[in-house]
Amino acid sequence: MTLHPADESFANHLRSLLPAEVLRPVEPRYLSEPRGRWTGQAGVLALPRSTEEVARLIRAAGTKRVPVLPYGGGTGLVGGQVMPEGPAPLLISLERMNRIRGIYPQENVVVAEAGCILADVQSAAGDAGRLFPLSLASEGSCRIGGNLATNAGGVGVLRYGNARDLCLGLEAVLPNGEIWSGLTRLRKDNTGYDLRNLLIGSEGTLGIITAAALKLFPQPGSQGTALLTVRDPQAALDLLALARGQVGEGVSAFELIHRQSFDFLAETLPHLRQPLDPVPEWSVLVELGLSGGLDAVTALEALFEAAVEAELVIDGVVAQSEAQRGALWSLREHIPEANRRIGSISSHDVSLPLSELPAFIQRGQEAVSAMGPFRINCFGHLGDGNLHYNLFPPKGRDRSDYAVQATELKRLVHDLVHDFGGSVSAEHGIGRFKTGDLQRYGDPAKLAAMRAIKTALDPAGIMNPGAVLA
Amino acid sequence: MTLHPADESFANHLRSLLPAEVLRPVEPRYLSEPRGRWTGQAGVLALPRSTEEVARLIRAAGTKRVPVLPYGGGTGLVGGQVMPEGPAPLLISLERMNRIRGIYPQENVVVAEAGCILADVQSAAGDAGRLFPLSLASEGSCRIGGNLATNAGGVGVLRYGNARDLCLGLEAVLPNGEIWSGLTRLRKDNTGYDLRNLLIGSEGTLGIITAAALKLFPQPGSQGTALLTVRDPQAALDLLALARGQVGEGVSAFELIHRQSFDFLAETLPHLRQPLDPVPEWSVLVELGLSGGLDAVTALEALFEAAVEAELVIDGVVAQSEAQRGALWSLREHIPEANRRIGSISSHDVSLPLSELPAFIQRGQEAVSAMGPFRINCFGHLGDGNLHYNLFPPKGRDRSDYAVQATELKRLVHDLVHDFGGSVSAEHGIGRFKTGDLQRYGDPAKLAAMRAIKTALDPAGIMNPGAVLA
Repeated sequence: MTLHPADESFANHLRSLLPAEVLRPVEPRYLSEPRGRWTGQAGVLALPRSTEEVARLIRAAGTKRVPVLPYGGGTGLVGGQVMPEGPAPLLISLERMNRIRGIYPQENVVVAEAGCILADVQSAAGDAGRLFPLSLASEGSCRIGGNLATNAGGVGVLRYGNARDLCLGLEAVLPNGEIWSGLTRLRKDNTGYDLRNLLIGSEGTLGIITAAALKLFPQPGSQGTALLTVRDPQAALDLLALARGQVGEGVSAFELIHRQSFDFLAETLPHLRQPLDPVPEWSVLVELGLSGGLDAVTALEALFEAAVEAELVIDGVVAQSEAQRGALWSLREHIPEANRRIGSISSHDVSLPLSELPAFIQRGQEAVSAMGPFRINCFGHLGDGNLHYNLFPPKGRDRSDYAVQATELKRLVHDLVHDFGGSVSAEHGIGRFKTGDLQRYGDPAKLAAMRAIKTALDPAGIMNPGAVLA
Repeated sequence: MTLHPADESFANHLRSLLPAEVLRPVEPRYLSEPRGRWTGQAGVLALPRSTEEVARLIRAAGTKRVPVLPYGGGTGLVGGQVMPEGPAPLLISLERMNRIRGIYPQENVVVAEAGCILADVQSAAGDAGRLFPLSLASEGSCRIGGNLATNAGGVGVLRYGNARDLCLGLEAVLPNGEIWSGLTRLRKDNTGYDLRNLLIGSEGTLGIITAAALKLFPQPGSQGTALLTVRDPQAALDLLALARGQVGEGVSAFELIHRQSFDFLAETLPHLRQPLDPVPEWSVLVELGLSGGLDAVTALEALFEAAVEAELVIDGVVAQSEAQRGALWSLREHIPEANRRIGSISSHDVSLPLSELPAFIQRGQEAVSAMGPFRINCFGHLGDGNLHYNLFPPKGRDRSDYAVQATELKRLVHDLVHDFGGSVSAEHGIGRFKTGDLQRYGDPAKLAAMRAIKTALDPAGIMNPGAVLA
């Protein structure tokens, strides 16, 4: 179906339907994205203040066949939030719908509007003595609606699940402009198809999330963090099993870091102190959050000792203060920035079945080496089987020298991931960047079902066209 | 679209496509259901041995426009597994697809075929030193495919989630006969719409689940159980918060029991010893499962003491042995049987926002009393906000005397639940029993989306017609 651009005549149409202050000039920040890969087209920007205003905008877009681009914090890494081609979109930013509608500590529930910044949801939970465990690098600027639309992951998934797992109910405007009031605070509700999970992760192609009821958790009584040098990736997995054997679900994070990360940090961010000398080939950042009067530092020291005994761990440091904990986490959190400064040829957000990880890492290394003297920075959420597997030029060379190989390298990594039963998008989504990968690696029956669902719910194709299903 | 019955000519058609032994005579057990409310029509019974055979059956049904009734363990309580009206169905029982395809202790994953009995999945996990936490009364005969198709709940939901939360990947045959190979063991996979959760809970109306990759958990090092008398339902909620403050996610189960349950147990199953005298008005069965060297009995005794101090708990017993734990759980598990022997007028599987539970219980009592001297047995998964709220005739009278009031009582309870923001089907699903409720209480935008999805994926309407969307 032909779509029409959100032009001045459409803007005037919207002005006849909504208060003037809902429309705003399109500032450049709405048209860029963190990877600098695409520039969006400026169409019309709307900043609705209520679900009803969102619904009116969508109905108007439907009537006029204008593409709609839902906009959260703009931090997505796969271009879901910019529309570089086709008719210019109606950009709907949820930033003014940023109210915590209610917090229910006894229920462990918070109801937040889609425009709430993730860190603000975390703070609201903290103020009520609870934990909202979704945690990721962009938490200071990403918005909860975007986190849900992309099913965001991050460092807390191992223990608490991804954005999907943290959501009890949704309010959303569907592509036909109808408001779905599904903002339930219920833990159990088996009344029909799971529209909530269908919208979560659909990247704005099946509707706009306007608010969510989210799960909260007890705050662990004691938290502790350690950086442990492991023999190899297999030892890291064995260490995870050992840790779980000792403290069960108390393992809150389990992040793998390759030496390349530390080298890049030393090169680009030398002020960050690195605690281990010599720099280990493989290490893991382990976080425990314990209750029941257990002390996390003591538990980490016991784990350290047992892991050395079992010849899994060679060296390590257990943070003895909040400052030390912060410093360890700061190393982990600065890896993406160090990567950015070095400049990757190709970056991959992949997941593997846990037990296949060591073989994948080994095979990947061999295959990439065969292509050239590239540097591999392999790090990430090992406990979830989720690696950020990024390829860099040899030292002294620039990524731009390898533009030709980039596609080939990406294909090589993704083929290998697929062969191992993995996913080529673990936590970042498809957006516009991976639509080709989805077609290549996706299950044909699932892809056909996705297309049928998209057509059924959005027959005119107005919602984020070009994303997910290009 | 007109459907045709699965008659002898259709059976002959299937015989031309599949080995003769796939078809079996329809035994009566396939046509009854636990509540004795409906009797299914005998059509043709197929017992496929592979996903490919399931696909061939579905394709044949699609070609001949024959309704398909997926069949698991037959334990569902809302009539999703019997087709009393319309053209007689092709009944596809998954019972021969009962293989554990793989178990991956290091990944905490088991891959099971849909026909595996739930208890067998639990055993397989246990043999590998892991826990598969889905646990419900019918676990000895229900099958994992049915558990997923209905998004089953049970006593472990508070800590581990319902069937939906325990599933990583699915293999299924879609209504067009295509096999979706989505049997991933990945913890993170953001590649397109969430077809998995769409099928889970769709009660066989969008496809047949043939296998699932399921999450396993560490076995808690120490488990303990207590039966504690609480002041009232509000005190029960406060006790839950207290317990979570002390042991975090270590609270594995939190079941509310009203005195009526104990009275029914004493009347119908007098051999079950009741530990509390006098029988308390309200009590809770608390289970803790702790790791990190903590002792659950010690933790329960500390909780008991603190709860008495806080005037939440009046009396109680902490099980001091596995036998005592079993005896406490046996009381809880026999409540449905006691109810069955007494004979309810109307039974309700409802959920409420946790903080609304006390007010709901109070208002429900008042409203039901105003209708007559009915006995209310209110019990269930308090930690999930899920009550089994069942109404019984006055002592000495029979349910059959109240057939006329049954509809009115059900309506009264469900209206009240809806007013409190609750759900009229917490864990049992819609089936054929609650299609009217879904229409009455369901969100119109969601219902329209559900119909659009159903039509998109199953245009001929062959999959379990009459269930969910009547």
